[in-house]
Amino acid sequence: MNETSPSSLSCPLPIDRYPTVTLAHGGGGKLMNDLIERVFIPAYGDSHLANRHDSAVVELGRERLAFTTDSFVVTPLFFPGGDVGSLSVYGTVNDLAMCGARPLYLSAGFILEEGLPMDTLWRVVQSMKQAADSVGVSIVTGDTKVVDRGKCDSLYINTSGVGAFVGKHPLTPDNIKEGDSVILSGDLGRHGIAVMAEREGLAFETTIESDLASLSGLVCALLDAGVEIHCMRDLTRGGLLSALCEISKGTGLSIHIRERDVPLAEEVRGACEILGLDPLAVANEGRFVAFLPEGEVDRTFEILRADPLGGGAVCIGNVRTNERPEVSMETVIGVSRILMMPSGEQLPRIC
Amino acid sequence: MNETSPSSLSCPLPIDRYPTVTLAHGGGGKLMNDLIERVFIPAYGDSHLANRHDSAVVELGRERLAFTTDSFVVTPLFFPGGDVGSLSVYGTVNDLAMCGARPLYLSAGFILEEGLPMDTLWRVVQSMKQAADSVGVSIVTGDTKVVDRGKCDSLYINTSGVGAFVGKHPLTPDNIKEGDSVILSGDLGRHGIAVMAEREGLAFETTIESDLASLSGLVCALLDAGVEIHCMRDLTRGGLLSALCEISKGTGLSIHIRERDVPLAEEVRGACEILGLDPLAVANEGRFVAFLPEGEVDRTFEILRADPLGGGAVCIGNVRTNERPEVSMETVIGVSRILMMPSGEQLPRIC
Repeated sequence: MNETSPSSLSCPLPIDRYPTVTLAHGGGGKLMNDLIERVFIPAYGDSHLANRHDSAVVELGRERLAFTTDSFVVTPLFFPGGDVGSLSVYGTVNDLAMCGARPLYLSAGFILEEGLPMDTLWRVVQSMKQAADSVGVSIVTGDTKVVDRGKCDSLYINTSGVGAFVGKHPLTPDNIKEGDSVILSGDLGRHGIAVMAEREGLAFETTIESDLASLSGLVCALLDAGVEIHCMRDLTRGGLLSALCEISKGTGLSIHIRERDVPLAEEVRGACEILGLDPLAVANEGRFVAFLPEGEVDRTFEILRADPLGGGAVCIGNVRTNERPEVSMETVIGVSRILMMPSGEQLPRIC
Repeated sequence: MNETSPSSLSCPLPIDRYPTVTLAHGGGGKLMNDLIERVFIPAYGDSHLANRHDSAVVELGRERLAFTTDSFVVTPLFFPGGDVGSLSVYGTVNDLAMCGARPLYLSAGFILEEGLPMDTLWRVVQSMKQAADSVGVSIVTGDTKVVDRGKCDSLYINTSGVGAFVGKHPLTPDNIKEGDSVILSGDLGRHGIAVMAEREGLAFETTIESDLASLSGLVCALLDAGVEIHCMRDLTRGGLLSALCEISKGTGLSIHIRERDVPLAEEVRGACEILGLDPLAVANEGRFVAFLPEGEVDRTFEILRADPLGGGAVCIGNVRTNERPEVSMETVIGVSRILMMPSGEQLPRIC
């Protein structure tokens, strides 16, 4: 081994504490952030990655495009309100939309387990097709690998996506300003609870359906109307809590929200209580927060509420400056509480 | 279930014969082609996919770009001449290069197994970085998922890539013409045999190293010099045999090659004999065939041979018209033999 060989550099993560990868490293919380900040960003060292937003913004000739990737390892493959196929399309479409881009092209990379029923693959592929058609994106390139029985869990899908920017500028956390209102597009936690309930065979009085949906229509409607949006973030792994903590950390700004204004369906609240989950940290697949000037809030509500998907949109708080950036919440009993980034352990493999 | 639900459509593959996915469905041969033609293309129904080339060619505003994806599930992760990290970069870079595109941006999607040593991940990430730096591509967006122990084989990587076209037109099989020469960039089979030997603990007299390399430099040198290339294809899963059979089938043209002109290292020939493998169907990760007019052959050799990677370039045959398209080979004993698409069973998980 010479001095420049990869293995002569030592890993910057605290190997003593985490000698191996744990499920929490993929949970969208603190451990995943450590991995990204200490392993991926120093290695790839790119301003695009360091920006830590849902998509990269890159130049190609005279055009600027959004480029993003996501792998989907959800279990079970089919759940109330969706399946791994529709999830793999909407998930990547939403990452493009959150940057202010109109999704155009997707890739589809399949890792299949030997023994997977052909009919299961067929159903997933049909679901991807329906989802792509509904958004108006084309799946233009693909790849299929098969691994031995027991080396995968039925099937995993990676989708990467390319999109074109709708407005003049990409939406990035850097645009967020003190005083911005924080808008939430609907109630929280349906996706995580729906998948969890299906996986664990839990029966609630009413079946909770995932909120899985394309956010592209809502985002394009806002941008086409010229609403001044500073930043958007979809609330997937780690939920609202991770999204707000990441943005606060990245921008150096504080975010204050009011618990009483955060909408939760009764059945989701009940399920979280039974399962001991924090609904703010449960994953969603069709919800976002938007940061925008207070003066744009009324027009935003008008546009969002014209679509059933944005019917539950509310203002949950605002952006402040503080000596040290933090996310705080006024609880229902009127106490202000500092919110911390979740560890990422609570709900593995929900996307 | 209503009538438009995905599962009400039946799978067009012969479920009786292949009720489940087999390793051969990922082998780059006949079964993988069946899957693509009967499941993926009808579903996604897009001219980009139907084109069946290494990358899709898509429009974005005033620019045309190449877009491709590949997942890497090679076992073992480290092998003589490379590892899953460098493979995941060069593999996708080569798919872009084969379309005549200069690789610009890559995504990196990791699926990690719970319990993976953090140091292994670190080595793979460093190797990706070195490979990307050597080609001049940026890894701009990423994703990390963790699955439970036993639901993956250490780690899988998906890379997708975006590139800009170097010449006036993308290189596609449609450009191939009767009379074109078939140029092979070097000797065959090193990658597949290197991985297989490492996996199975086989010891040969000399260690066979993978031919894994970026082909982007060679391709850009040819295109920058204005060489008229009609089509290129890298010789990964299914090797030279799959590549020629796919191209012949796709274009309706016949391809004739001469066995004596196909270079094979002695140790690869010996290993293939011992293992009962057809060297024409063994995977390579740094070799391509190019189809170009006979008048361009000398200039092509001059450019290729100026680079050690193209030092072994040879002309192995030409393109013909026939009543029915076929790939034929004049064997070393002077007999002409029709070559068939391999089934895809011979070497699983080499990329």
